[in-house]
Amino acid sequence: MIAKTYKDMLSAKSVIRQLSEFATARGAEIGYENVFDFSLGNPSVPVPAAFTDMMIKLLKESNPIDLHGYSQSLGIPSVRAKIAASLNQRFGMDYTQDHIFMTAGAAGAIAHALRCVTEPGDEVLTFAPFFPEYNPYVNLSGAVLKVVPPNTEDFQINFEAFEQMLTKKVMAVLINTPNNPSGIAYSEETIKKLAAVLTEKSKEFGHEIYIISDEPYREITFDGNEIVYVSNYYDYTLSCYSYSKSLSLPGERIGYVAIHPKCPYAKEMVVMCGQISRGIGHNCPASIIQLAVGETCGLTADLSVYETNMNLLYDVLIDLGFTVVRPGGTFYIFPKALEEDAKIFCEKALKYDLVFVPADTFGCPGYFRIAYCIDTEKVKRSIPVIRKFVETEYPNR
Amino acid sequence: MIAKTYKDMLSAKSVIRQLSEFATARGAEIGYENVFDFSLGNPSVPVPAAFTDMMIKLLKESNPIDLHGYSQSLGIPSVRAKIAASLNQRFGMDYTQDHIFMTAGAAGAIAHALRCVTEPGDEVLTFAPFFPEYNPYVNLSGAVLKVVPPNTEDFQINFEAFEQMLTKKVMAVLINTPNNPSGIAYSEETIKKLAAVLTEKSKEFGHEIYIISDEPYREITFDGNEIVYVSNYYDYTLSCYSYSKSLSLPGERIGYVAIHPKCPYAKEMVVMCGQISRGIGHNCPASIIQLAVGETCGLTADLSVYETNMNLLYDVLIDLGFTVVRPGGTFYIFPKALEEDAKIFCEKALKYDLVFVPADTFGCPGYFRIAYCIDTEKVKRSIPVIRKFVETEYPNR
Repeated sequence: MIAKTYKDMLSAKSVIRQLSEFATARGAEIGYENVFDFSLGNPSVPVPAAFTDMMIKLLKESNPIDLHGYSQSLGIPSVRAKIAASLNQRFGMDYTQDHIFMTAGAAGAIAHALRCVTEPGDEVLTFAPFFPEYNPYVNLSGAVLKVVPPNTEDFQINFEAFEQMLTKKVMAVLINTPNNPSGIAYSEETIKKLAAVLTEKSKEFGHEIYIISDEPYREITFDGNEIVYVSNYYDYTLSCYSYSKSLSLPGERIGYVAIHPKCPYAKEMVVMCGQISRGIGHNCPASIIQLAVGETCGLTADLSVYETNMNLLYDVLIDLGFTVVRPGGTFYIFPKALEEDAKIFCEKALKYDLVFVPADTFGCPGYFRIAYCIDTEKVKRSIPVIRKFVETEYPNR
Repeated sequence: MIAKTYKDMLSAKSVIRQLSEFATARGAEIGYENVFDFSLGNPSVPVPAAFTDMMIKLLKESNPIDLHGYSQSLGIPSVRAKIAASLNQRFGMDYTQDHIFMTAGAAGAIAHALRCVTEPGDEVLTFAPFFPEYNPYVNLSGAVLKVVPPNTEDFQINFEAFEQMLTKKVMAVLINTPNNPSGIAYSEETIKKLAAVLTEKSKEFGHEIYIISDEPYREITFDGNEIVYVSNYYDYTLSCYSYSKSLSLPGERIGYVAIHPKCPYAKEMVVMCGQISRGIGHNCPASIIQLAVGETCGLTADLSVYETNMNLLYDVLIDLGFTVVRPGGTFYIFPKALEEDAKIFCEKALKYDLVFVPADTFGCPGYFRIAYCIDTEKVKRSIPVIRKFVETEYPNR
């Protein structure tokens, strides 16, 4: 007898992973340089040299017993203090180390945030299009994920649908801005309205409704815009961060939860995260990675390539007549497919070695995601291929 | 509203942590060298230089995008293959990479193993004395931990009590050999008898009963003895490992689950672990740590100091008239206190700056744990202090 819950999941393979595996296999046949693999959100720019140098310095100069020793269960205090200071400087917040809990990336952060503010059976709302991993993240925590349908006009929040779904059972709203897969950053207006609705409904329901804000793309914004930092607009915010994208460190699994200092029980919630860790076998992220990230806090990899790539793709998509909203950040763009079934559209693209992801699992059928975290040179080479694909397959679009 | 389950845990502080904090505070007063801190199981010998060199080599010579990129969700395949080969060579097993799942230390390994083989409400048995973290590990997974009372004669298994508690509701038995806190390694006879009982009862109940074997101290054995490797005696074994103790890397959170190749669904269970990870926000351990451990597989830190320390303490304890079973491994020794209430005994010891842990939370009242993963020089200095404490406080023992 093995656990049914997880055994039943074995047949449900991730579409993204399947497409990525296809791309790898096809690459082995025709050379990976000839496969335009837009499937995976794996950063394509190197970590800053300062991070590598800091890792080497730690290895060479620290006492190995201290360096590799157990960190405190909430994370290394000095690292948490540096992260708090960096957030305060950038966003005008009042975090201290007591508001920061170190996690294994954003997935670890969201796992703790969810368990902090929900009990089994509580509802969590998210907004389509959404990162499909939110399904197991929420549903296996014991809470129940409900998806608010998209506003395909501009991929801001569909407030009409949202307010209908915002019942007393909802304890948290899980948002992601800039958004995977749409690439859209929520406007200040959207965040203000969201905060206003939640404040009103919290009063009406007699319990707080938290925002769990998934922010791995916070540093990747376009057209000179800064991200609208959700915690600046709503006190009951748990900000979930990962260095995966900003420092190009996805495999090192390093991030944190930052709990708004004005949130009641903020410091207790950080200590609760330590208790949650004991239950889910999380523990702290690797000590040396914590230390190196603490020392290079505020740095980012050279993220400008993503904007370059976005502009190249946006221009050709517009030129070819696609319906597409210009991304405000991330390394994704999210056009409407040229036929109703985006899966068929993406299958046709595969014949041209163009690997796109249909957006059915993102809660937005009829659209597809292009992940352009690849070399600009390859994006440039893909453009005539995209043209050929569209002009051949959809001559009367 | 914040989650009650975890909020209620905030008041329950770990006795070990409290004592360790006391030791640190007292150290600030009188100099840490004067506090005989036997509270924490934090290794005191450095990681092998080969590990540090490998980390530096990886940082200097790898393409950073590959080095820090997402690893496959079950762990890096080449690392899993090296671990399988190393286990096969040492224990004559037939693991392949498909039987290995990489985890954040033993805590991560146990979290996955538990969720693989239990459903909420199922019972898991463990044997006192036991590592108190097993309580949150099991109970927060949804299963229920029941503790079999100790066999204080030799700290092997109390089979009489075990067979009484082994009902149809039991899906797994969680063992730890060599054991924290007793220091005892289960004999081949014990493991064989355990396997025989479980095989018989599995047949009777019509379902497998798994052994989840927590093995972080596997490499720390004394008197020239090798560990009895549980998987050699029972097919339904999930071996949970951490490099924390063997490589002195506790803060880097690296370990694995190795599922017995003859276990039905062994390979599927590894894939299930990947699904479990999605639910608990675990993901893979840090890529660079996986790679460095893979390259130094089979190495250990110089663990001989622990046997030296054990012998020094065992001799003085015997000389002072303590009831104590000679440890077979780990860096713990587990004497009977000189009065009924071990908490009072340990409080009296604190007056001499001797920090011992009373074993009530280990399920074995009246005993206490000495963690001797400290410098031998300090162990030597502690001996006259232990003599003075015992002779002063218990002159008529």
